[in-house]
Amino acid sequence: MAHPRLSLNQATIKHAPLPDAIDATRAAGIPSIGLWREPVADVGLDHAARLLADSGLRFSSLCRGGFFTTPDPAERRTALDSNRRAIEETAALVSAGAAGSAAVLVLVAGGIPAGSRDLAGARHRVQDALGELEPDARAAGVTLAIEPLHPMYASDRAVVSTLGQALDLARPFPAESVGVVVDTFHIWWDPEVLPQIARAGAEGRIATYQACDWATPLPADVLLARHYPGDGVIDFASLTAAVEATGYAGDIEVELFNQDIWADEWTAVARHTAESFDRAVAPHLRAPVAA
Amino acid sequence: MAHPRLSLNQATIKHAPLPDAIDATRAAGIPSIGLWREPVADVGLDHAARLLADSGLRFSSLCRGGFFTTPDPAERRTALDSNRRAIEETAALVSAGAAGSAAVLVLVAGGIPAGSRDLAGARHRVQDALGELEPDARAAGVTLAIEPLHPMYASDRAVVSTLGQALDLARPFPAESVGVVVDTFHIWWDPEVLPQIARAGAEGRIATYQACDWATPLPADVLLARHYPGDGVIDFASLTAAVEATGYAGDIEVELFNQDIWADEWTAVARHTAESFDRAVAPHLRAPVAA
Repeated sequence: MAHPRLSLNQATIKHAPLPDAIDATRAAGIPSIGLWREPVADVGLDHAARLLADSGLRFSSLCRGGFFTTPDPAERRTALDSNRRAIEETAALVSAGAAGSAAVLVLVAGGIPAGSRDLAGARHRVQDALGELEPDARAAGVTLAIEPLHPMYASDRAVVSTLGQALDLARPFPAESVGVVVDTFHIWWDPEVLPQIARAGAEGRIATYQACDWATPLPADVLLARHYPGDGVIDFASLTAAVEATGYAGDIEVELFNQDIWADEWTAVARHTAESFDRAVAPHLRAPVAA
Repeated sequence: MAHPRLSLNQATIKHAPLPDAIDATRAAGIPSIGLWREPVADVGLDHAARLLADSGLRFSSLCRGGFFTTPDPAERRTALDSNRRAIEETAALVSAGAAGSAAVLVLVAGGIPAGSRDLAGARHRVQDALGELEPDARAAGVTLAIEPLHPMYASDRAVVSTLGQALDLARPFPAESVGVVVDTFHIWWDPEVLPQIARAGAEGRIATYQACDWATPLPADVLLARHYPGDGVIDFASLTAAVEATGYAGDIEVELFNQDIWADEWTAVARHTAESFDRAVAPHLRAPVAA
């Protein structure tokens, strides 16, 4: 059996259709799964919810909303509409998940719009979009989880670059409806990471914790630079202890974008994920409560 | 004529021996040059100083010291000795440069030692090394300029990742002997960049300002991702205005690591550098004082 708090993010076995992803997760004894919108849409939301309910797995998050930095009014409207549908999908999936599922929608902000150098403007539009979406999230009982991405993605993927910045963006809103993602891969380098994790905990904003390792050299496509916990340089002891110290007791996702891992057989990847989690992350967690 | 505050960092024409680098800089009408230790060593320090003196160019900085994160005592001693020689070289070169030269030694901290995950320990060793080197720098009239590097280099090149962190490292020391490098490429993404530039100015620690652009997609080797000012997404208006507002009046270096630029003819690169500076950076500078 895998660790009771481990969740396999579906992106780790990106090419698996949803039924296969669920099967691989269960075969590895992993009790929880994080889903992506596209493979859910491939089978249809209702069928996805039924598969999830039948699996007995918890649902830990949906990836992803966001991408709302465009200044074009029509594109912005399209993006916000898409986020509203993602909120509804999150609510449907969490209802289908086992007890302990989390109504978390991960938000990746989006980059600087093409042809623009207005980073500050793009960041303001993230704040504005949160203001538009938060009432919908609150009504649906969903937490919008702002994910700070590594600064190497600041230009083309996410203008939210640090945990502190994500918390500042969340500040105007209730913690129930706007939180943050703590993903080791994106924030391990930050000299402020430990105090900002403590702050995230004190403000009740840790919507999910994700464990993923960093190694160099980076691959040619830096989007695919994510490694199994323990295969890189990240100090999971200090980061995990900091998250545990906040009292966060939810699932811990492993989400890997890596061409070599994607090429592996799905159940083997799920098993390897569970083993790497046991070695690199689990020793720094409180002992699980006996069932 | 190029802008009177422009300095060509020699790395921009990496394959040019020192005499050629000086010729290309002068041919483009650029009044200042930043040097690297290896090409200086190739001709010998005394000869390099003579070439510089004969050129009439200012000297804006020497690259580079640092790389002192190893925990191995012997390797550490070697690194510190090398830094002490770099301090002496800086002092010799600034004496040979034209009036307005800057006694600045750029420090790149070094990455996490191989096989280690102790980022915090590596950062502590940077602090310790500064304490060992600062008396030598002070005695030589040289400013050690801590360069925060983009967080994508935190594991293998520089554990100093933000301007705020660099300023914290500098804090125990006089501003004359320990300062920071403000390089747009490395810090443009930082949500705290403007207040930290203001802080750097208020603390008198801006040893040099470097203008270099960021564009995506990143090349396969992310070390070679630097672009002419104006060819990427960086907002030179806000960053340059922030540096100017501190009263910084020194040279502004352009230092580009880029395979395509390195393949170009040296004088053409120097001219292109001057033109890109005129377009992207100069409009945000105070009008130069008439000679």
